[in-house]
This record gives sequence, C-alpha cells and structure tokens, in this order.
Amino acid sequence: MTVRYKLTVEYDGAAFVGWQRQNNGLSVQGVLEEAVRRLTGCDCSAVAAGRTDTGVHALAMGAHVDLIRDYDPETVRKALNFHMKPHPVAVIEASLAPQGFHARFSALERSYLYRISNRPTPPVLERHRVWWISNPLDAERMSLGAAHLIGHHDFSTFRAGDCQAKSPFKTLDDLSVERQGDEVHIHARSRSFLHRQVRNMVGTLKMVGEGKWSPQDVKTALEARARAAGGPTAPPQGLYFVKVIYPA
Amino acid sequence: MTVRYKLTVEYDGAAFVGWQRQNNGLSVQGVLEEAVRRLTGCDCSAVAAGRTDTGVHALAMGAHVDLIRDYDPETVRKALNFHMKPHPVAVIEASLAPQGFHARFSALERSYLYRISNRPTPPVLERHRVWWISNPLDAERMSLGAAHLIGHHDFSTFRAGDCQAKSPFKTLDDLSVERQGDEVHIHARSRSFLHRQVRNMVGTLKMVGEGKWSPQDVKTALEARARAAGGPTAPPQGLYFVKVIYPA
Repeated sequence: MTVRYKLTVEYDGAAFVGWQRQNNGLSVQGVLEEAVRRLTGCDCSAVAAGRTDTGVHALAMGAHVDLIRDYDPETVRKALNFHMKPHPVAVIEASLAPQGFHARFSALERSYLYRISNRPTPPVLERHRVWWISNPLDAERMSLGAAHLIGHHDFSTFRAGDCQAKSPFKTLDDLSVERQGDEVHIHARSRSFLHRQVRNMVGTLKMVGEGKWSPQDVKTALEARARAAGGPTAPPQGLYFVKVIYPA
Repeated sequence: MTVRYKLTVEYDGAAFVGWQRQNNGLSVQGVLEEAVRRLTGCDCSAVAAGRTDTGVHALAMGAHVDLIRDYDPETVRKALNFHMKPHPVAVIEASLAPQGFHARFSALERSYLYRISNRPTPPVLERHRVWWISNPLDAERMSLGAAHLIGHHDFSTFRAGDCQAKSPFKTLDDLSVERQGDEVHIHARSRSFLHRQVRNMVGTLKMVGEGKWSPQDVKTALEARARAAGGPTAPPQGLYFVKVIYPA
C-alpha cells in the first residue's frame, strides 16, 4: 500500500540530460527518485506531466511519487529538497494526490514559455536561460505567423522524428508573442504537445521575426505536414515548462 | 593621445571578486583591461561608476576606457566582447565619450536593485541571483521602514567599516519596496552610496519585513549613527547595479 503525493518541481535544465532517466548523465527523475529512496529506503518511480529534453527548464513541473508511508506533505517537500542537494532541482509544493491522480494522464493543459534575448550583445547574466538572437526580431510579425498555428491541426511539420505520439493532431490553445524590453517571449498552451513541438514552432517564428519568412509562410509550412517544411529547432535553454492544470 | 570610450557593461557577479582588480581572483576590471590590451596592444585603466563587491551583479554599469586609436565604437564593443570570452561580462553599449567625461566623477545618479526570493523552498533557477528568505516578508511594512531613510542623512549606521568616503552624509532619493510574486524587490537611487550602504539597508529592512523590528526602529537605527545599531548585511548575490545617469 503506497500513498501518492502530487509535487510541483522547479529545475535548472542546464544541469540535466532532461526529465527522464538516461544512461548518459544526470536526470531530474533520477535525482528525485534517489531522494525518495533516501527518505523511504524504497525504490519509486517519479512521473511528470512532461518529459522535458536536455537543457529545458521547469518553473513548475507537475509530478507524482508513491511513498510507502503516510508522511505529512510538508515533511515530504522538505525531506526531498534536503536529499536532492546540491542539484538544482527543488520541490516547491507537495500535497496528497486526489484519488486517481496521475501527473501525466490527469493533465488538462500544459503551458510553456520560450525566452529569446534579442540584442546585439550576447547575454551574460541570462546566458543559460535564453536563446540569443542578435538580428532584430519583429514580434508583431511573429504574432501574425503564430496565429496560423492556433487551433486543431496536424502538427507533423513541428514534430521531432522520434516523437512517440500516436497522432500528429493537437489542439493549440494559445501561441502568443510579446516583446519585453530586450526579450521576446513566446507563450504556448495546449492539452499536450508533440515532441519538440514548441521548439520547432519557435524556430519557425524566428524566421518570420527576422523577415526571412512571411507570416503566411507559417501556414504553408503547417499545411505541408513535413518536418522539412518547418524552420530550425530552437535551442533548449530558452524553454521553460511553466504550468500544468489538473482537475480541481 | 588617447580616445575615451564610454561603455555600458553587464556582468554576473558570481564569477568575480568584484569590479576592482584584486590579488585573490578574477575581477571585472581585470578582464576588461586585458581585453583592451589584446585589442590595442597597450595597457589601459578601466574606470567604473561603482566598484561593486564580490558577487554583486551589474545590468548596466557605466565605465570608460582610453584607447590609443580612434576606433569605430561598434568595433570596440564587438572586439572587447570577443576578447572577454568566456567570462560572464559583456559590453552592451560603447560610444565616444563626451569631452571631460569620467565614468565615476560625472555620474549624477546611481540605481541599484536588490532581489529577495521569499518562499518556503530555496530557489534553484535563480540560486545565484537572489537572497533566499523563507520567512514571509511584509513588503508594505518594509516600505514604511524604508521611508525613514529617504532624504539627506548621516548614514553611518549603514556604512561598512572600510568605507573610504570622506563624509557619511548622503542624499537617498529613493528606497522603495515592492512584492512581485515570490520576490521582494528593493530599489535604491542616490547620487552616490557609501560602501555596502544598500546591502546594509536591505538587511535592516529584512528585520522589519519579518516583524522583528518596527518600521520606527529603522529611524532609531539611522539616528544612532553606528553600524552596530543597524541590521545584518544582506548577501551580495541579490544586488544589481542597474543604472547610472550622466549629464545629457
């Protein structure tokens, strides 16, 4: 008999090979599962709302772990944080999971933020936190391009070759672009995403922002339903998993 | 005959012993002067608006360097950035300095930001960028305390022992406190500051925010004109030099 805890996890993607356990380096899942083992003495599988790639950050990843004892949730939060030191991952919230809760399958909506630093000089304070693009980007033009992607579509053009989703159809609820000083922020919201969908959409919008593509070219790329028709894949360090919504 | 260039410099304080050259580690000044030497083949002294301490960051530090040739300012910016790699310091703007310009003595106003992360869990993405305080802080109460420091005062209570300023009197134009989600931001603005004045004021306001001091206690501490009457020194990693104003 185990007790399921719902966790909200923050991590610095620069330190990890991604969420999922890999043979080639430290994963967020591995660090979290090891902390559970130190707390409980038992093995456990940590499950996340999204399996972020190497270098991708999370401000508030949804996750769950099954523990062999009925701990106070604040004890779980503090103990896991203690045992995860010094790795840059932290449990910012822990609670008893509602009946039937699953961090991945219960998720109703996921949100990502992509940060571009758009100025002539490479960023130093935000070096591992943004994609640096020195050419001036036209955020309004990028918004016009993004609008073509919102809605229910076959997103094959923005899907990584190794994507395991059964269908390339997804409903993109939001894809908005806004300038904030020297940065351009892209917000993406959907029930779920294909593998690398956000980074592939961002790389395509960058082409529009630089004036190399028209906003209409994004529609053409989408309709081609082929990865080769899309823009480049944006690098991971600008991507943040920011929020997951579960049933109340 | 040399040509003076006005620079705006960004740096990650975590990598340096501070602005000023020291024998015990890498300084921003040292890295910048070495880049000038690589560009011009000559030694030069870099001067900054403020000599930040170990660990203190700069978003836009004012500085100047004297070069032996009349370079295009964009060439200076790019060449210095090239030669400063991989250190986390960058020249974000370079221009020919106006006649008589001096990065330190011409400064009319300096602004600092202090960032506190105020939540139960230690920050991981912003680990070296904020002061983490887990006890809830009352930002409005801190504002009331800060108000006692604004104006022309003897700031001996907030002055480091090694401060070299001739007088402890300064005019503090602004000291405001605002909550932004999980963070508390303190903005300080003055023509100039005593050594560690901002960090000592922040450490004192933290006592007020935690409820250990009343806002009125800040006035009492100020009037004592003794460092021992003030709160602790806030750590350097939350402090940012954000702006310097020079004559138009």
